[in-house]
Amino acid sequence: MSQLIDPDRLLSDLRMLRSFGSWRTGVHRPTYSPQDMEARHWLCSQMKAAGLSTTLDGIGNILGCSPVSGTRLLLGSHCDSQDHAGWLDGALGVICALEIARSFLERRLPNAVDAAVWADEEARFASFLGSRAAIGQLDAAEVAAAIDRTTSEPLSRALEAAGLGGRPFLKITAEDYLGYLELHIEQGDHLDSSGLRLGVVTAIVGILQLRITVTGQRNHAGTTSMIRRRDAARSLIALATQIEELLQRLAGERTVWTVGDIRVEPGQVSIIPDHAELMLQVRDADAALLDRVEVEIQDLVSRVESPCATHCEVLSRTSPCTMAEPIQEVLMLASEAVAPDAWVKMPSGAGHDAQILAQVMPAGMLFVPSIGGISHHWQEDTAEADIVTGCIALADACYRLFQRIEG
Amino acid sequence: MSQLIDPDRLLSDLRMLRSFGSWRTGVHRPTYSPQDMEARHWLCSQMKAAGLSTTLDGIGNILGCSPVSGTRLLLGSHCDSQDHAGWLDGALGVICALEIARSFLERRLPNAVDAAVWADEEARFASFLGSRAAIGQLDAAEVAAAIDRTTSEPLSRALEAAGLGGRPFLKITAEDYLGYLELHIEQGDHLDSSGLRLGVVTAIVGILQLRITVTGQRNHAGTTSMIRRRDAARSLIALATQIEELLQRLAGERTVWTVGDIRVEPGQVSIIPDHAELMLQVRDADAALLDRVEVEIQDLVSRVESPCATHCEVLSRTSPCTMAEPIQEVLMLASEAVAPDAWVKMPSGAGHDAQILAQVMPAGMLFVPSIGGISHHWQEDTAEADIVTGCIALADACYRLFQRIEG
Repeated sequence: MSQLIDPDRLLSDLRMLRSFGSWRTGVHRPTYSPQDMEARHWLCSQMKAAGLSTTLDGIGNILGCSPVSGTRLLLGSHCDSQDHAGWLDGALGVICALEIARSFLERRLPNAVDAAVWADEEARFASFLGSRAAIGQLDAAEVAAAIDRTTSEPLSRALEAAGLGGRPFLKITAEDYLGYLELHIEQGDHLDSSGLRLGVVTAIVGILQLRITVTGQRNHAGTTSMIRRRDAARSLIALATQIEELLQRLAGERTVWTVGDIRVEPGQVSIIPDHAELMLQVRDADAALLDRVEVEIQDLVSRVESPCATHCEVLSRTSPCTMAEPIQEVLMLASEAVAPDAWVKMPSGAGHDAQILAQVMPAGMLFVPSIGGISHHWQEDTAEADIVTGCIALADACYRLFQRIEG
Repeated sequence: MSQLIDPDRLLSDLRMLRSFGSWRTGVHRPTYSPQDMEARHWLCSQMKAAGLSTTLDGIGNILGCSPVSGTRLLLGSHCDSQDHAGWLDGALGVICALEIARSFLERRLPNAVDAAVWADEEARFASFLGSRAAIGQLDAAEVAAAIDRTTSEPLSRALEAAGLGGRPFLKITAEDYLGYLELHIEQGDHLDSSGLRLGVVTAIVGILQLRITVTGQRNHAGTTSMIRRRDAARSLIALATQIEELLQRLAGERTVWTVGDIRVEPGQVSIIPDHAELMLQVRDADAALLDRVEVEIQDLVSRVESPCATHCEVLSRTSPCTMAEPIQEVLMLASEAVAPDAWVKMPSGAGHDAQILAQVMPAGMLFVPSIGGISHHWQEDTAEADIVTGCIALADACYRLFQRIEG
């Protein structure tokens, strides 16, 4: 099967992509930064050199189209990174898509593999900005309103500065494709700690985001007796402890939850706080479990005994996204062929562009191990052998998909 | 006893002082603000009109000295306020000192009452800035380094802007005085809710301030399994709950504690936090109790089972300050004379300039009720009858103290 791709070229191109915005052993390549745009232009040139007709669109997406007119698959990922982050997150799927599209052309296979590079998966401006634009989900109003989450720079200005102003947006014509496949690092440690080489993604988790707010009464921290206090911070701590116990009770094997932020106002050591809030995120691939969590936390917050007023607000809720069965099947067959008994079916705890493409076509994902489970950090890495294995398995899965259709 | 002061003049002067920086029914009179300086200049003029030789010094303190050469008492408080705060906090003790000094002169009593107005008790720049300067505890290095806690404006610039630059600092010559007395609103609700009129302060609480820090590992909130996480926020919540239980066990009848602030870093909903901290303040009049609290919290934090590193730092620790017995005695006699069976001995949960003066001379305090226990808020108030009662009792206590000395 290894003849389907060129492992040395794959690794060489990956290392080249790392040179744009390299930082220690990782990269610092924020969406639309000069280094991100250099990377995109280099990717365009590589696609063109491979014989793909290539477009860089007005949101920074790249689509490299095979000249072959047969049934088509779309492969891709993103090349923007979090700040001072890893060299493979997004980049691996992008170079893998390029390598497979290129290899299918070189081997004169009768089917077309197109390669996509999405913009801003890491949500500098908005979640899945590029892939949502590509499926027609990004309207002009959102583009006009979007700002950099840290600096508040308007998206429109960043697009102008990146030389993307005035370009039209690509539209993925979903009916042209059998489906979308994406190779990605796991970002967790399940594969690495289990000694496995590949993970066939069954679903991308749904994410429930809640803000728990406690409103008390601001007062003097020295003269107000304990019995009279309505201390928002102490009440929040008590409530958070009950929420933690509830989550431990409701959690499935792979449920994860995070208290990402806590704020207290006025935040002075000598003033009893009148406001305290925490941000809670719960992820699971089981929609029914997320339902139970939401209902029971809402119930707990509304019933809890507290001298303060308590409130639970659902900030956002995404549904788990099940990967298409036919694509899971070929990914399993390919995984078993390339890494016998060294693969597993697993959900993705992180969001990916694949969940956006899944709204318009069958989609699937394949994971390779993250060493130590490290992600969104410059130390993120994957063994070269695993990178190659992942790309070969994805190519093989493409081949099998085409074979199924073509008979 | 009521002949010792003029109640109408007392209330009239109090209302006049409220007009400097008035805000709703309270005042907004930050230290060295134009309205604070106007108030200070007006207070100087009132003292001079009363026949006191008056000095406004380089830190904003005012001392009005009686021309009488007999044994002396010092009375005072501060006229700066917290932002948008109450009209009586500090102001009551200042006008009461002025009224008693003035009345003693008018009545040609053989003893001297001096009136002091301290600067920045509310710690815009530093705790007890003025009273510490007056007892020689504020050195040039601290003055040079002090900045506005909110705006970072240097103290030196604020003093210049207030017209205080270049003036020397007053030094209280402690041996000249029998002691220091301060009338203040309780700021809590003990007197008000018990239907009492006066509180003879036994001690000013000591304050223990701790920073509890938890250090974990930043990681992806979706891909990192619960078992592998070192989530600083969840660990801090668990630790805070244990600290709460410990404090409930150790607390005395009047111990109070406050979690004034909690911070989580990086504070992003999708990132497992690697840093979380809380600020804990514990107040009690019993030094041994504060010792136990400090030792047991340190012990708990060092022994707690956590996937994170935990640390407890003592940010500051002040000792409880016992009020001088002879002054407590005359305050009790005066209270019983003015408000029979309607007074109580009680600690002060808040800090006061009296604890600074207590370092160099016998000091005592008398409380009047705060309606609803409201403090540091523009709604803070005290019944006029209680204001008058407090001032009469303080004047009577001064009279009794002089009588004891003079025989």
